[in-house]
Amino acid sequence: MKNTFGNALQVTIFGESHGDQIGVILDGIPAGITLDMEFIKQQMEKRKAKGRISTQRHEADEVKIVSGYFEGKTTGAPIGIMIANTAQHSADYEKTKNRIRPSHADYSADVKYRGFQDYRGGGHFSGRITAPLTAAGAIAMQILKEKGITIASHILTCKTVHDTPFTQEEAALKKEMKRMNEEDIAVLNEQAKRDMLEVIEQAANDGDSVGGILESVILGVPAGIGEPFFDSMESELSHLLFSVPAVKGVEFGSGFAFAEMSGSQANDSFYFDNGVKTRTNHNGGINGGITNGMPIRIKTVIKPTPSIYKPQETIDRQTHEPVILQIQGRHDPAIIHRARVVVDSVLALGVLDEWMMNESWNVRKG
Amino acid sequence: MKNTFGNALQVTIFGESHGDQIGVILDGIPAGITLDMEFIKQQMEKRKAKGRISTQRHEADEVKIVSGYFEGKTTGAPIGIMIANTAQHSADYEKTKNRIRPSHADYSADVKYRGFQDYRGGGHFSGRITAPLTAAGAIAMQILKEKGITIASHILTCKTVHDTPFTQEEAALKKEMKRMNEEDIAVLNEQAKRDMLEVIEQAANDGDSVGGILESVILGVPAGIGEPFFDSMESELSHLLFSVPAVKGVEFGSGFAFAEMSGSQANDSFYFDNGVKTRTNHNGGINGGITNGMPIRIKTVIKPTPSIYKPQETIDRQTHEPVILQIQGRHDPAIIHRARVVVDSVLALGVLDEWMMNESWNVRKG
Amino acid sequence: MKNTFGNALQVTIFGESHGDQIGVILDGIPAGITLDMEFIKQQMEKRKAKGRISTQRHEADEVKIVSGYFEGKTTGAPIGIMIANTAQHSADYEKTKNRIRPSHADYSADVKYRGFQDYRGGGHFSGRITAPLTAAGAIAMQILKEKGITIASHILTCKTVHDTPFTQEEAALKKEMKRMNEEDIAVLNEQAKRDMLEVIEQAANDGDSVGGILESVILGVPAGIGEPFFDSMESELSHLLFSVPAVKGVEFGSGFAFAEMSGSQANDSFYFDNGVKTRTNHNGGINGGITNGMPIRIKTVIKPTPSIYKPQETIDRQTHEPVILQIQGRHDPAIIHRARVVVDSVLALGVLDEWMMNESWNVRKG
Amino acid sequence: MKNTFGNALQVTIFGESHGDQIGVILDGIPAGITLDMEFIKQQMEKRKAKGRISTQRHEADEVKIVSGYFEGKTTGAPIGIMIANTAQHSADYEKTKNRIRPSHADYSADVKYRGFQDYRGGGHFSGRITAPLTAAGAIAMQILKEKGITIASHILTCKTVHDTPFTQEEAALKKEMKRMNEEDIAVLNEQAKRDMLEVIEQAANDGDSVGGILESVILGVPAGIGEPFFDSMESELSHLLFSVPAVKGVEFGSGFAFAEMSGSQANDSFYFDNGVKTRTNHNGGINGGITNGMPIRIKTVIKPTPSIYKPQETIDRQTHEPVILQIQGRHDPAIIHRARVVVDSVLALGVLDEWMMNESWNVRKG
Repeated sequence: MKNTFGNALQVTIFGESHGDQIGVILDGIPAGITLDMEFIKQQMEKRKAKGRISTQRHEADEVKIVSGYFEGKTTGAPIGIMIANTAQHSADYEKTKNRIRPSHADYSADVKYRGFQDYRGGGHFSGRITAPLTAAGAIAMQILKEKGITIASHILTCKTVHDTPFTQEEAALKKEMKRMNEEDIAVLNEQAKRDMLEVIEQAANDGDSVGGILESVILGVPAGIGEPFFDSMESELSHLLFSVPAVKGVEFGSGFAFAEMSGSQANDSFYFDNGVKTRTNHNGGINGGITNGMPIRIKTVIKPTPSIYKPQETIDRQTHEPVILQIQGRHDPAIIHRARVVVDSVLALGVLDEWMMNESWNVRKG
Repeated sequence: MKNTFGNALQVTIFGESHGDQIGVILDGIPAGITLDMEFIKQQMEKRKAKGRISTQRHEADEVKIVSGYFEGKTTGAPIGIMIANTAQHSADYEKTKNRIRPSHADYSADVKYRGFQDYRGGGHFSGRITAPLTAAGAIAMQILKEKGITIASHILTCKTVHDTPFTQEEAALKKEMKRMNEEDIAVLNEQAKRDMLEVIEQAANDGDSVGGILESVILGVPAGIGEPFFDSMESELSHLLFSVPAVKGVEFGSGFAFAEMSGSQANDSFYFDNGVKTRTNHNGGINGGITNGMPIRIKTVIKPTPSIYKPQETIDRQTHEPVILQIQGRHDPAIIHRARVVVDSVLALGVLDEWMMNESWNVRKG
Repeated sequence: MKNTFGNALQVTIFGESHGDQIGVILDGIPAGITLDMEFIKQQMEKRKAKGRISTQRHEADEVKIVSGYFEGKTTGAPIGIMIANTAQHSADYEKTKNRIRPSHADYSADVKYRGFQDYRGGGHFSGRITAPLTAAGAIAMQILKEKGITIASHILTCKTVHDTPFTQEEAALKKEMKRMNEEDIAVLNEQAKRDMLEVIEQAANDGDSVGGILESVILGVPAGIGEPFFDSMESELSHLLFSVPAVKGVEFGSGFAFAEMSGSQANDSFYFDNGVKTRTNHNGGINGGITNGMPIRIKTVIKPTPSIYKPQETIDRQTHEPVILQIQGRHDPAIIHRARVVVDSVLALGVLDEWMMNESWNVRKG
Repeated sequence: MKNTFGNALQVTIFGESHGDQIGVILDGIPAGITLDMEFIKQQMEKRKAKGRISTQRHEADEVKIVSGYFEGKTTGAPIGIMIANTAQHSADYEKTKNRIRPSHADYSADVKYRGFQDYRGGGHFSGRITAPLTAAGAIAMQILKEKGITIASHILTCKTVHDTPFTQEEAALKKEMKRMNEEDIAVLNEQAKRDMLEVIEQAANDGDSVGGILESVILGVPAGIGEPFFDSMESELSHLLFSVPAVKGVEFGSGFAFAEMSGSQANDSFYFDNGVKTRTNHNGGINGGITNGMPIRIKTVIKPTPSIYKPQETIDRQTHEPVILQIQGRHDPAIIHRARVVVDSVLALGVLDEWMMNESWNVRKG
């Protein structure tokens, strides 16, 4: 469905980096909810470019709700969220528009769209489109929060710097998650945070960029949400995560580390202690595509920002002659600290959609 | 869509491990194709349990096409594929049916389905349902092959044994892929293969199990297939991969290894040599969700088979009392060699669906 | 989605008139339901060919459930329903296979499927595929019945014979509906029934056929089910109704008779009497796409069966030369008495799907 | 999918009658098309309120494209179309907001949305949302026109006044269609037009309203477009038509008139004359859900506008006490002349979507 996703909750995104307006239509949100506009604003702020470690393009990212919201409450009709682009410098892209930028969608889009795509700032492929996703995600998070579900991520690794992983113990985990959600740069260990900032600044100074791995936790999802096979919780969440630009890998629970385990190590033993629980959580809270009540644990890798200032070898879009690309404009030496907010947002949308679909089974109770 | 997936090509699966019949409805396959029944059979054979490294449940897996096929050719109507279950030993599950099997869907399904799920052999959550997926994938592969697209996987790692990765050079890669597709146990390096078999047999002897990582390549997909955001090639393929039981992580191109790279290392430089190419292929053939003409490279982790013979601590489904589970029946000490075929199959279905959707743009040429 | 329909409840059909097997995969039915196999059988019986007014092809239409049903209860997994074809006379179609049958899908399918469609008995376009739809509908009806929802249709007109319309008064209406659901030939007025049978037999004697109009009522749907715009109750139900072969018109409430009314006549005044009600029901129980608690009233026209024995002018499929078509085989002079059951079935599937989607809003109560 | 519709072409609508902004996201339009902005404007003009026979709410309906359009051409990214509401008089609705308006969605929406819907001007249920549909339809029409497909409707009946039906002869039909597309009030016969205007003005003077029947033709669709069963051309088009407010009946070809025909009258004989044709066109260009190359013929009934100035009996939304409703504000005594444009628009969207899906089959040619 291209730019629309979801079963009970539909998200439709549109817009380009240098267009007038970007936005999202969020359909399926129940009526009667007073949106926490302050929270939406905070999420938008967290996603914003910051200091020397981010692009100098500073967008206001003011969220305007044009439909589905009346007298301070959702109406049940589709919520139209608009965000104006205000800080485009389109001229930066004129000069290099025929030089295919490595690791960007320039070439693949050029083939698909026969040369008609908007090249400025990556057009529709821009990370800017994650701004409306963040606003939509904030609304989903608010509903999940009412149900006791919280989501948080931190930067687990950035180049060779490693943060402490989220703890397993629930009370401590909750505190860590809360803290991460209050931070601009979500890193658990303070020294790791300083080291990461240094790594990013160094990359900025070098005209280069870095990526990293995000560790996310979704806490409070009860057992029984998700589907076997095609709408497994993993399928839905990975579908959404891989739609975030720069994501190139997703794992649940122990993920790729399962490869070296034996079954007797990997199997999570069940026990009962004020609820059904597992002693370990290698499966990351999901068995057979369906939640088991344990925390959902996800790791997502964000590749280094493709836009770097270092000269790069590439070819001309039309002549295919070799050319040197010297990127102009304002770019992020790292986006992982910003992508964190987007990852949390799509996770919220995915979990809420699966939850809402699961409600359909209650047809028999009513 | 629960048990149905796809946009232009729809796959609907059904069945349980110990039911009479499992199957798939494959809708959207063009009319007029003489199905390569021999190839379908070969794929089914490759997926079958083998020797000491697999379960002793030996299913005939005879594929019966009951619709959409007439006078030896597809008709354009939905293709109904039925596979009889013939070798169930349901009694094996009677005794332990109330003991929640760790890492299986037993508990999460029990909550979702309120205790009514078919517990025998995992019911609908069984890997048996990948048999019809394999048959459907074989049909997709045949169409892709006509377009010059081939898919192959090998076991990159199994516990601590590592195979040689697929080579980058295309002519050699093609040979490797061809060879892997002819093997029962797809490992490039002969010594690695022997070592892996040993590891698996050792696990079998220990009443334990192992998993591993599959490396897959899709060769021959031209540039321009896929969509930005929600129907990105990565989103669609990961959605399908995570619907395969035991898959817990998926990465494209350099995947999680991107985390330690700088942009200048990670960016794939474009050049022209009888077509647009990139010197490296860290992005695994996909930029911005759309193919760039380079080989699509994917790694998928398969967790160790949850069914192990070693006694395991768990709880009773109803009383929640602690119990020791001693699994009966016939189980695979490893499924990675069989999962390989399923992974190739869903990749074929995903690529064909994206390709077919992309054809819709040709509305303007017609 | 071609042969799959539904949002919370998915129906996937497959099969051909002369294939081995036809069937349906019904996904989304909650777990724990003891299916009323006797009722399914009754519905299949009602849809069957009968006496001189129907085809002499007598199919057993034995429903076999191959998945999603365990120990006498639904499991929550997709329900696979198989029906064997047992009474094909394929030879009847050999001789005339190149003569395009008027009002059938022969020509349009020939273009779409490039000549590869199964021509025998209309192949996938056959009314036989409504047998699995009937089985699926019977399951939906059972769930609706638990919620106090009943569905019934009668033959309102057949050629120039008109039956009495369903009454408006609810207690009497219920009785009429119950009676219609017990009849093989659903006509309210006994004289009208005799006249209709005579009209059909006359058509049979003439080698001709007839159609007619079905009037349907869905009783007991509470207010608030449905969606504005694209998933309006009318949109969903008409979508399903027009997928039934031979349906060429659908209206809700006063339908086409609205054209001659003024607003003051057409508007249904609200009043309260042990619930919110309307004095008239011109809108057929639906306002703005959403149910208002009044009976849902629908009329559906069934065109005369295209297969008639009278010689017909047509052309050769390949040469396009004019030819006379003399249809062989066994055909229905009327299908309206059988279509009635199919119409009820798809209405049940549509209402249940909308109901189940509506449950997703309860995410906020949970 | 609530407010999103389509398979290859997705239409997502949003907005309310008295909100700031209404709009549509149109996704799937191929890249490289210079949009005919003048034509879009003409279509918006035709849909506008006119003279004494329409509401006095005069909206500018200025179409603003905010995405998917660059340097005067479509880019392939979703086209965001925004229309500002400029002429709301919300105060008109304050006084009567608790009086359930008969034949409106007030009550059904109140139940579904638990009282939180935007009541002003019908909120999201307003005919205003058909303005963005009209803009989206105009883009679809432009693409269809390039393929030789045209769509036109006229008012066949309005109360007791009947227009001449569209002629069957193709050259004359084309002229009639062209003429209807140039008219503000689409009536073929001049006297009928004058009579209809008189009927509407009389209704306006009486504080009442009228409806009528639209006859539509889609010309130039080649044979082979559509699907059997659930995505039949009739299913898709009726789905869209019934999503247009006030539509309560849809028929194809002879529609309800089939009821009185015998098969020998109803069957359309095939002949060849510079292409495969049928002598009659009772089936309205569709056999088995798939086009047969003949003109697609549709009739759609539009119920009388529910908003009338005459006092009406109804109940209070909260107390359920009987009250007299005296509607304030500006309302249309008829909308059929405006609905005509919306009907053409959704038909264009439906045909283009089916066409684009059909292209997926060309996977085998490429």
